[in-house]
Amino acid sequence: MELFITFEGGEGCGKSHQSKSLYRRLLAEGISAVLTHEPGGTALGENITKWLKWRKEMTLSATCELLLFNASRNQLCNDVITPAIIADKVVVCDRFYDSTIAYQGYGRGLDPDIIKVINRFAADGLVPRLTILLDMPVSLGLARKSKDRQDRFEAEKIAFHEQVRQGYLQLARNEPQRFFVVDAALSKKAIADLIWQKVASMLPKTKQPII
Amino acid sequence: MELFITFEGGEGCGKSHQSKSLYRRLLAEGISAVLTHEPGGTALGENITKWLKWRKEMTLSATCELLLFNASRNQLCNDVITPAIIADKVVVCDRFYDSTIAYQGYGRGLDPDIIKVINRFAADGLVPRLTILLDMPVSLGLARKSKDRQDRFEAEKIAFHEQVRQGYLQLARNEPQRFFVVDAALSKKAIADLIWQKVASMLPKTKQPII
Repeated sequence: MELFITFEGGEGCGKSHQSKSLYRRLLAEGISAVLTHEPGGTALGENITKWLKWRKEMTLSATCELLLFNASRNQLCNDVITPAIIADKVVVCDRFYDSTIAYQGYGRGLDPDIIKVINRFAADGLVPRLTILLDMPVSLGLARKSKDRQDRFEAEKIAFHEQVRQGYLQLARNEPQRFFVVDAALSKKAIADLIWQKVASMLPKTKQPII
Repeated sequence: MELFITFEGGEGCGKSHQSKSLYRRLLAEGISAVLTHEPGGTALGENITKWLKWRKEMTLSATCELLLFNASRNQLCNDVITPAIIADKVVVCDRFYDSTIAYQGYGRGLDPDIIKVINRFAADGLVPRLTILLDMPVSLGLARKSKDRQDRFEAEKIAFHEQVRQGYLQLARNEPQRFFVVDAALSKKAIADLIWQKVASMLPKTKQPII
């Protein structure tokens, strides 16, 4: 049974920690799982990430960002996510196409309709069955991030991050069945427990651990 | 007056030679011009080209190719083509979005409608005023190319190149006003003369040389 889970949220919300934590928990319960992330996760994707995040001296249009994120996404779907789903593994992905709608759509102002068309095209039919949105006030998230080495997106203004946050919340309202919104200001342990309860309930009966 | 000219055609048809030749002729006539090419023409674009053409050990889906070509295209439009047009220069570009329809659409079999949507989105409103299609039998073009160091596209089967050729001819039939089809089996000099006559007739009256 396919179980493709994505983590979403703004800078500093703890996606990386929580996606790793969920992945380890799945393995500990004897459930085959794959952990991956966007952008990146493949040789091509890591190269693209370097240009998207760190070549800050170079101007990239929002359109160009959108196309690069989706090229990276397509390679990740073909090389990592789809093969893992076919092999009946649970896939945990730190960011996926909702990030593109939140950042390049709500954040940069690109038309959400064209983003959705290109996202769907690049994801080649893959749709997350569960999307965990770690939501927290922008100021709290940014305060967790180092100011010394900010990538292209972390270095954006507060107003940008606020638009991204509101975008995510709108996406969650639009698809309440897929989204699971968690208060990311809770303790790491409390967040991990909430996520595990939700995920455990979605596992096939034969794989469900006793909580 | 905007004059954005693109060169198209299959492998070995002489686009590179003829686009350079046209560019030099424009300069010799005292007309400001810019010569560029796809994929590439910017720092990001040259990096993308390396992955598209030369990382042949890595499988890339047609979708991924399409997204990468268009990311490179968008950067080229923003950084090179649009500024040159604004500065009233004639722009000569060796390949542009018709290549994507011919290669990823007719060659690889991707839906032409989604290609057109993404091409237009990436080109940000830019449309070539003249597209010179250098047409020749596939076998003749490939025979001109070295077998020692073939890129991802040159290394494709004859049937692929034949589909690309037929795709280009169909595009030319669809837009006879924009396309100028030249028999690429003619001598270099004869081709350059035909192209120059066509381009000279499109220059503003004040810039038209006496032929």
